[in-house]
This record gives sequence, C-alpha cells and structure tokens, in this order.
Amino acid sequence: MNIYDYMVEKGLLAKKAARKLAYISTETKNNALIAMSEALVKNSDFILAENEKDITNGKNNGMSQGLLDRLALNIKRIEDMAQGLKNVALLPDPIGEVTKMWRNPDNLQIGRVRVPLGVIGMIYEARPNVTVDAAALCIKSGNAAILKGGKEAINSNIAIANTIIKAAVEAGLPEGSIQLIETTDREAVNVMMKLNEYIDVLIPRGGSGLIQTVVKNSTVPVIETGIGNCHVYVDEEADLEMAENIVINAKTQRIGVCNAMETLLVHKDAAQKLLPKLGERLKSLGVEIRGCEKTGEYIKDIVSASEKDWETEYLDLILAVKIVDSIDDAMDHIYIYGTKHSEAIVTNNYRNSQRFLNEVDAAAVYVNASTRFTDGSEFGFGAEIGISTQKLHARGPMGLEQLTSIKYIIYGEGQTRK
Amino acid sequence: MNIYDYMVEKGLLAKKAARKLAYISTETKNNALIAMSEALVKNSDFILAENEKDITNGKNNGMSQGLLDRLALNIKRIEDMAQGLKNVALLPDPIGEVTKMWRNPDNLQIGRVRVPLGVIGMIYEARPNVTVDAAALCIKSGNAAILKGGKEAINSNIAIANTIIKAAVEAGLPEGSIQLIETTDREAVNVMMKLNEYIDVLIPRGGSGLIQTVVKNSTVPVIETGIGNCHVYVDEEADLEMAENIVINAKTQRIGVCNAMETLLVHKDAAQKLLPKLGERLKSLGVEIRGCEKTGEYIKDIVSASEKDWETEYLDLILAVKIVDSIDDAMDHIYIYGTKHSEAIVTNNYRNSQRFLNEVDAAAVYVNASTRFTDGSEFGFGAEIGISTQKLHARGPMGLEQLTSIKYIIYGEGQTRK
Repeated sequence: MNIYDYMVEKGLLAKKAARKLAYISTETKNNALIAMSEALVKNSDFILAENEKDITNGKNNGMSQGLLDRLALNIKRIEDMAQGLKNVALLPDPIGEVTKMWRNPDNLQIGRVRVPLGVIGMIYEARPNVTVDAAALCIKSGNAAILKGGKEAINSNIAIANTIIKAAVEAGLPEGSIQLIETTDREAVNVMMKLNEYIDVLIPRGGSGLIQTVVKNSTVPVIETGIGNCHVYVDEEADLEMAENIVINAKTQRIGVCNAMETLLVHKDAAQKLLPKLGERLKSLGVEIRGCEKTGEYIKDIVSASEKDWETEYLDLILAVKIVDSIDDAMDHIYIYGTKHSEAIVTNNYRNSQRFLNEVDAAAVYVNASTRFTDGSEFGFGAEIGISTQKLHARGPMGLEQLTSIKYIIYGEGQTRK
Repeated sequence: MNIYDYMVEKGLLAKKAARKLAYISTETKNNALIAMSEALVKNSDFILAENEKDITNGKNNGMSQGLLDRLALNIKRIEDMAQGLKNVALLPDPIGEVTKMWRNPDNLQIGRVRVPLGVIGMIYEARPNVTVDAAALCIKSGNAAILKGGKEAINSNIAIANTIIKAAVEAGLPEGSIQLIETTDREAVNVMMKLNEYIDVLIPRGGSGLIQTVVKNSTVPVIETGIGNCHVYVDEEADLEMAENIVINAKTQRIGVCNAMETLLVHKDAAQKLLPKLGERLKSLGVEIRGCEKTGEYIKDIVSASEKDWETEYLDLILAVKIVDSIDDAMDHIYIYGTKHSEAIVTNNYRNSQRFLNEVDAAAVYVNASTRFTDGSEFGFGAEIGISTQKLHARGPMGLEQLTSIKYIIYGEGQTRK
C-alpha cells in the first residue's frame, strides 16, 4: 500500500472511532486508561527489549548522549508512564460540561457544551513517553489520536502502542481510538499535514525545526508548541536578592526546557548592584555568560553577545545578558526577540509591574516569580500535552480542556424565526 | 512595488498597530467607531458615486442580478452600516476581562485575561458592507484588520475604507489598525495565505469556492465559516403541526443564508401524515422538491433526488426530502452529508431528543426549533463576523469574544520552582 492510502485508511478509522468516542461514558474511558496502565507494566520486558533495539541503532548511528537519554527506557520510566495513565483517569472529564446556559428573547434555552475536537494528530521526536501521554490525554478528552513518533524510537513506539491499543480496545474503546503510524517514511508526515478531511488538529512536539516545518507546511490546523526564548527583566526598583534567586532558578533549575530563561535584561541603574555577585554565582554553577558591552563592565571574562544570542533558545548552561536604559527598552527587546512563551519582570514599582503585565504579549507574564512555573501541573491543570505559543484556540499550558471544542445545544418548543 | 513587498508592508504596519491596539482604552476604541460611523454618512455621496462605478463595471461584465444586488449601495444601506458601527461601540469591551483567577499551591496568583488575537485578515467577496462590519468588530476586540474584498467591489471598498480609516486615525487609533488591500491582483490572496509572520488568523467569508481555497492553501491559521448543508429531521413522535411550521420557516424564511434547511429527513411512520399537506404548502411557496423514491408516494410531481442533492447547499427555493427508517438512519445521513453547521430534530420523544443533542456533531443542534436561529444576534452576542463550522478556536456564531485569545498573568512575591 502506498503511504497516501495508508494514511487515509488511518484517518478514516480515526474519524469513525471519534464519532463514538465523543459520547462514550467517563467510566469506559477511565477503565481503558487503567487497563492501558496495567498492560504497560505487564509488558515491560517486551517493551524494554524493543527499546534496546532502538538504543543499539542509535549508538550505531552516532546519536548524541542527550538524545540517547531521551530515547532510553527502564522499568522506572515505564512505571512513570503507567502512573501517568492512572493520573489522567483521576482527572475530571471535560466532555459534556455545560459552561453556560441561557434563554434568548424567543425563549429558546441555549447551552454551550464542551465536546471533543475529533481527531488529533501528534507529530513528535525521540521520546517514547509522548506516545503514552498523548494517547491518555486524547482519550480522556474524547478524541481519537493518530501518533507519529520519530524514526529513532520506532521499535519502542510500536511495542508501546500495540500494548496500550490492545488494552484500550479490550476495555471497550472503539477500534481506531489510538493509532500509531508504523512507517518511518518521511512522506507520512507530508501526507498527514494535508489530511484536512480526517484530522482536526495537529500538535507537533519537539525541536523548533520540527515545529516550524509543521507550521509552515500544514493545511490541517496546527497548535504551535514549546519554543521559549524567555526573558527575565530586573527593573530599577527590584529587590535584588529576589532578582538573584529568580534568575538562578529560571536559568539553572532545569536547562533543557522551554520555560527556562535564555536572556537576562537588567535596568542600567540596577546593574552595578546586581551583576557582579550574580555573575559570579552563575559562573560557579557552570553558566556561560554572553553579555552586551556594558555587561562586561560588571562581570569579568564573559563572551561578547551578538545579534544571534538575543534570538537563541539555548536550552543549555548559557545565558545572554543585556543592560537596558528603561522598561520600554526591555519590553521592546522582548517584543523583537521573544517567542511569546513566558516573560518575567522583577520589580517593586507598581506602575512598571502593571505596564509589564498589560503590554508584554506572551502566554504567561510574571511579576516577581520564575518563568519555570509555566506548566500544566504548576498551573493546576493536572496534566499537559504541550505549551501553546500561538494565540488561536489555546495559549499556554494545554490540559484536557484545551483539547476540546464546544457545541451549542438548543431546547425549543416549536420556535420559528420572524 | 511587487505584490509580495506590498503585502509585507501592510503586514508590518498591522503588527505595529496591533501592539498598541492591544491595550488602548475602551473609550478611544468607541470614539473611533462613532467617528467612523459619522464619516460614512458624511461621505455618502462620494461612496455612492464610487459604488456606481462598480455597478456599471458589473453590468458591463454580465454580473448576475443577485450579485449586483449584493454589490449595490444606497443611502439606506450606508445608514445601516453607520448604525452597525454605533451598535458595536455599545457592546461591552471583551479585552481585559479576567475570566478566572486562582492561587496555586506555591501561592502564585494566576489570572486568565482576555487579549486580542493580533492581526486578523479578512478575505471576502462582493459585499462592501463586510468592509465596515469586519473593521468594527476587529477594532472593538483590539485587533488590527487587513481587509481583502472582491475585485467587483474595489471602488466601493476603497471609498469606504479610506473614509473609515481617516476617521479612525483622527480619533486616536494607531495608523495601520485598519488596512484595505487596494490591488485586484489575485496574487495578493496567495501571498496573504502565507503571511504567518504578520497575520494571526484568516477569516474567509463568501461562497464555498472561496472558503475551500483558503482552507486548502493557507498556512496562516484559518477560521472556516459559513457552509451550511443543514437538516431538519422529523421524528416518528413529532408534533406534526410544529414540524410543518419549523420546516417552512427553516426553508423559506430566508433562502440565501447558511442556516437555512437544505434537506428534510422524515421518519417513515411520520411521512404519511406529514408529507402530503407539507408538500403542497412548500410547492405553493414556490419550493421545488427533490425527493427520494418513497417521497414520491406522498408528494406528487417531484424531481427524483440524486446523490448530488444530499450534498448540495442550494441557497435557493429547492428542498431535498428523504424518508428514513429510524433516528439512526437520520443521524447517519447527517454525519455523511452535513457540514457541522445547524441540525434540528422535531420530536416529543425524550430519549430521541437527548440522543440527537448528544450524538449529532454540529455547531448548533436544535430540538423543536428552526435552524434559522444560528446567528450572533439571535444567540445574544450583539454582532457576528461569521459562523464557524470548524472546531478549533471558535464554533458557531462568532462575536467579539471569539476574536480574542487569552494570556496568563501571574503575581508572585519571589517564588522559584523547586
């Protein structure tokens, strides 16, 4: 079968499943999630053996240590995935919630009810746990899932997907509720991006290369996730000890994540007191500093920052530092180089805190807190499928609610329009 | 200047305007809307003269009477547009509304606040009033608007746009808040569909050809509007007088609109009592009936329906009629041929009413009421920019709220992530 026909077959099956999933009971969905969880643990030997094949292939192909680490499974990681499934079962079911109901002048009773999106396509890279996480959130929100993982993880993904799909169907979910694209042919992604008839939304998860490819080529609606060139701006009137702690946390608490800080902006009148001590502390934590010319006056032995540094999401122990003349300069810098993910100001000035909250355009805007809090769990959503950096449909951490749409249900008694 | 550079220039200016529009005061926006309203009336002689040029060109090019009617302006229509602007000024400003605010376990105060989408691109056809309606709703919701009307209306649109733009800027809106694409080169739309960097969302309004072209070719996120192949299903246990009135209303109250009924589905056990009288009434109103074989047993002298009839949005005095064996058959027919716009059941059976509301996937699902109610004004939204038939971002009638996104604002006191 050619790739196009293969993908259409998957799409048709997903659409058929989605029609039933839309009004399946919460109990059936939860039972399926728990069965999937148990099956994962039961099948762990097989999954680990398949994962070992991917690891061996990766090593033979010279895969980096970082990627190998993302790819590798062990019993602890499988148990974590299994626990994740159980956690999703415990979350409230978003489907069927009537968020508003009113009567119009014709005495029609109009309700706004939460319904699934339909079929969600996930395109991701080497992390096999995304296969489980995405399937869990899609199922709980009543959506069918078509999963396309990276070729590096193909053996692991097939083992995991077959395990959870079998358990899900046995527990009563319609066939086609969860499907994995089992080919590593790159053409599959190209076809997937044009399957408007069968896929309601595509969510790419991974590096900026993958995400930009999907955004630029997909005619299926896309939710853009995860690129975070985040800033912390330390204002003139900041509490400097607080500023220091927030900067250290936002840069170093975990470096490879989208909500980590990449550029520090410092008001010129705070630089003298903040930077010498903070600079040494960052360096002692292994952070390489790339600063503007003035930064060099306060922190010794730093690399000169270039235009490219302001644009880069390092995801590494590197920090760009720029001294600015005013909050307006800081906000202009964020406007030009930011990716609308998470931005923070540290200040005790009321007016500046309000200006920053109002004028900075990002999914999450912080006063006096670390950017690292932009996360579904930290926000209280229970789980997340990614962090949207676009404005349409969903913005910021995406939990179950962000995987839903609405419909209007209207109760009449024979009304006609005049 | 080539078309690409021309469009990028518009995009850049819109983006710059959007940054300011996002936090401009409600008063300034309302003053602008009122100034635009007054300018339209004041400039009506000029606008009518320019519209006359389009009408003359249209007649010379053999434009149909229906299109000429949509294109034609008169003083009444200009006054209606002016009144529309004033009505939008009276609506509550959606921007800045905090829809939810809570504290997380770290004692961060997290708020969800409504913000504009940014830059909205409208692509539409011959109706010059869309220029005014779209500008009004975009401005009130804090968005910059890039408007691309049909070439048939180019003189009217330039006259209208220049009038309202001048008034808006004089009233304090940033330059670039409203822009019209003044070229009739078709390439402009092709460029617009790829301007992801400058346009946040495209809303096509018009016939299905235009909408499908935009959906299939745009990489800018699109909100699909307005195709309505709507059904009324008369169940076995329906009140037949009510059914008759709803069918007549849904088909004939206004025929050229997306929420009009196109196919009537009748339960086989209701056909005998319903169809003979209803058929004659429809025919007396000038409705051509295209029925399935069984329909011919109850209504005389009808056209035989073909597969194409089930698929067609007639927007005309034509009705397809099919007799079905059960509510399941009716819902299957709607699933296959419906466009997820508006669907109605007429029944007094409780279980069937609930099944229809739960299982039919459409923006608006009705029990015992006409599909013609799917409309921003009827729903109480005050105004509408179109009716979304997709599930992402907005579904059903789109008012001001549907032209917004959200951001999270987080008030901390030095919190860092553990």
